[in-house]
Amino acid sequence: MSYYGPMDADRTPDHPDLREVTLQRVLEALVDPVRRSIVTQLATAAGDISCGGFDISVSKSTATHHFRVLREAGLIRQHYAGTSRLNTLRRAEFDQAFPGLLDAVVTADRASA
Amino acid sequence: MSYYGPMDADRTPDHPDLREVTLQRVLEALVDPVRRSIVTQLATAAGDISCGGFDISVSKSTATHHFRVLREAGLIRQHYAGTSRLNTLRRAEFDQAFPGLLDAVVTADRASA
Repeated sequence: MSYYGPMDADRTPDHPDLREVTLQRVLEALVDPVRRSIVTQLATAAGDISCGGFDISVSKSTATHHFRVLREAGLIRQHYAGTSRLNTLRRAEFDQAFPGLLDAVVTADRASA
Repeated sequence: MSYYGPMDADRTPDHPDLREVTLQRVLEALVDPVRRSIVTQLATAAGDISCGGFDISVSKSTATHHFRVLREAGLIRQHYAGTSRLNTLRRAEFDQAFPGLLDAVVTADRASA
């Protein structure tokens, strides 16, 4: 059995279809400053960021909660690489579902930093 | 004394300078579906809308609260015309402070309606 076989598939969390994500859920995700900071860091990063690689000052369990909310709002995709859980923005899909929203929020968030 | 003299100025509520409004405050205003509906109705209206002229199903006191939150977030301007309090979007100023945000939210809100 390959290392990236069924066992890994089981560890991959669920990701919603963007067509089923509501604007309400997206705004509830983005209204939290820590979650917005995670999104902004991903938007300006060259690649994926591991869960421990963000500049946020919350406990690990709180961070895990924030990642789940962002994942359920269709904003981020999470996958395992070995023992690391990596995060990436679902930018293309999200931009199609909510045109202009991610750019507007990230631009304003960076301007306020 | 003119009808639009000092007495009216006293009745005009305070409106914040958009440069002092934070993205946090804006998102807290827009995350509420009733407030978002008020903004969307204003964005698609031909002109001002009186406080009683919105299609929202909340009590008058709740509506008054929502208008205040929107005003303090720099999203709407309120002024009196006789005994009516009229509301208008501060679109140009808001777009300058938060480029693209209002359009993205209104577009997504209308698409979900």
